[in-house]
Formats: sequence, C-alpha cells, structure tokens
Amino acid sequence: MKGFFVVFEGIDGAGKTTQARLLAQALVQRGHPVVLTREPGGTPVGEKIRSLLLDPVLAGLTPLAEALLYAGARAELVASTIRPALAGGRVVISDRFVDSSLAYQGYGRCLDLKELEQLNALATGGLVPDLTVLLDMPAAEALARLTGRADRIEQERLDFFDRVRWGYRQLVKRAPQRYLVLDGRLGCRELHRQILKAVEERF
Amino acid sequence: MKGFFVVFEGIDGAGKTTQARLLAQALVQRGHPVVLTREPGGTPVGEKIRSLLLDPVLAGLTPLAEALLYAGARAELVASTIRPALAGGRVVISDRFVDSSLAYQGYGRCLDLKELEQLNALATGGLVPDLTVLLDMPAAEALARLTGRADRIEQERLDFFDRVRWGYRQLVKRAPQRYLVLDGRLGCRELHRQILKAVEERF
Repeated sequence: MKGFFVVFEGIDGAGKTTQARLLAQALVQRGHPVVLTREPGGTPVGEKIRSLLLDPVLAGLTPLAEALLYAGARAELVASTIRPALAGGRVVISDRFVDSSLAYQGYGRCLDLKELEQLNALATGGLVPDLTVLLDMPAAEALARLTGRADRIEQERLDFFDRVRWGYRQLVKRAPQRYLVLDGRLGCRELHRQILKAVEERF
Repeated sequence: MKGFFVVFEGIDGAGKTTQARLLAQALVQRGHPVVLTREPGGTPVGEKIRSLLLDPVLAGLTPLAEALLYAGARAELVASTIRPALAGGRVVISDRFVDSSLAYQGYGRCLDLKELEQLNALATGGLVPDLTVLLDMPAAEALARLTGRADRIEQERLDFFDRVRWGYRQLVKRAPQRYLVLDGRLGCRELHRQILKAVEERF
C-alpha cells in the first residue's frame, strides 16, 4: 500500500480530534501503519509553537504573525514527519492542515486568501491531502460543546466561527472530489463508520 | 522630526548589539525619542520565538520552518512596535531585520532568495530601513569573540558564517545608498562616532 494522507478539518468543537483518533485505531487494527499527528504541533517545535499560539496572554498577536507561525509549524511537521511517513507507505492522519489557515486566518480574520495560499504552498512544498474530512456543524452548537475549555481560539466570538465555517464550505466548492463533508452532529459511531468507509474506498 | 528606522546587521560577534545600544543612548541624550528593539524578539511573542529558535535542543529545525518563524516574529514586531513608533515620529533602532533572514537563511542555508524576499515583504508590509549599518568582519574573528557563548546559531561552523558574510555584501551591492558598511574590527568608540555621524547626516 502506498502512503495516504487524511486530514480532519472543521471549527473548534466539531469532533475532529475524536474522529482522527478513532480512524487511527481502526486502521491500525486492520494492519495499516499509521502516523497520527496534529496541527499546530506534532513535533517538539510544533508543540512549543502550539502552546505559544494558544496562550491567552498572547491574544493580541496580529493575524499575519499568527498565519506565519502556523506556517512555520506546518513546514516543520511536513518535512520531519508527514513526508517521510508518506514516503515509507504509511497512512498519515492529521488533525488540521492548510485548510485551517485558509478558513481561520483567511475567511475568519480576513487575511488575503491568495497570499495565504502562496505562503502555505511554500511551507508545505505543495503537499495536498488525499482526503480531507470536513466535520461541518453550526458554530453555536460546536462552541456549546466546548464550555469549560478556555484556550485563546475558543474564546473568540460566534460570528468569527460562523465566518470560518462558511470559509470551509467555500474551500470544498473549489475541489469537492478531495473532501468528505459530514454533519458533525451525527453520533460519534456513525461518523466513524462513514469516515472509515470513505478511507477504505480510496485506498 | 519624522520617524527614522535604523537597522544593525552583521554576523554573530560583529558588535551589533553594543553599537545599537550606544546609538540609542547618544540619540536619547540629544533629545530624540528612541525605540530600541531586537530580532527575533522585541515583543512578548517575539521573545518566546527567540528562545525557541535559539534553543540548542531544536537544532534540527528545517531552514524553511526557521525562516517562517523569523518572519512571524518580524510581522509581530513591525505591527506592534516599529510602525506605531515611526508613525509617532520616533527613531527606531533594531538589532537585525529582514537582511538577517536573507543573509542567514538565503545565503547561509541556501533557501531560495526570491521566496524569502516575498515572504518578508508579506511579513513587513514592505517596510525598508532608512539606514542599515553593516558591521563587516571576517567570520573567524567574529566567532572568536564569542567563545564561551553557546546558543544554537553560534555553534554553526565557520563556512556557514563565511557564506552569511558574503551574502550581506551581496545585499549591499544591490542598494548601496541604504547601507553604511563599517569594519567591525575598528574600536568600539570609533565605530560609534562614524555611525552617529551617518545617522545625524540623514536626519
């Protein structure tokens, strides 16, 4: 089996982390070599950038600086983890990737989308996922799930997350064949079943 | 008096930090409002990125990720510190700026110079210093001054710093009117005298 790159996307609270883990477990049980990672993070540098970006003290970081730091963490993750794993025939599952920057910094924070795309093409060397699972749901319901969590992103207002959700949907329209869009309000097991089916069909 | 932006550049050990501080002190004594900063750093986010980049544990960071993180710190410094200070008529003195990325990541680590320039134009919004003081000296002599210091950059080999020095000289050739190139081996007081003279002439 050749390497395969699956990315989970969606607004905070949509269930990405849970579904990424469930998919990883299921594939491992089926004998596939899996690398599970997350963005920002996934490497020692990335995890440090992650804690920096999610630090509530740094809520005043400019959107552009934020986009550049995400791109830096992404470049490191691609070079040190994702590309070697794909080259070695593994399934790489990432909790967020380039689309998160386009949706959050582009649509959410109104940075220029073309500049963001160029920046991310530079950071990733043009790497595109084989499949992106978008867990779509209304921002109000996703945020309600997060009550009690308190990192910086999740303190942002509802209209921000509505813009992000809308941004994700615009991205899907540009290349629908690369996406599996699911209603994040479906039950956890049902979501997992549909995701696993879609991944196995594409192997 | 309008805002004025002075940058100090040169390889590690060339004396940038000392001369930046001496210039700041002299201008303050002459009644000029001065903002002294450094890269990476100069803001709470920047200082965190600085400690990340200079952490010897992270010596394996890819050059591209490094360039993106520097650009992120730079974007934050420009937006939060440099542009407001210049708009307020202050003299901004920075210990390193865009040329450091071009010399270190471009000439030193062989990243594509055009891509680096585009990245930095994005990060800075095209901000260019009014004067860049390049403290030029042989890498071997500059590194010898640093004996005892042990951050990551300074552990790099001599041929790396020779490439960086050569890179700085190439940058000067492209826009000589923007630079004051001085021999870093001159005495500290003599360097300071020439730098202060050049700055006052340009006010």
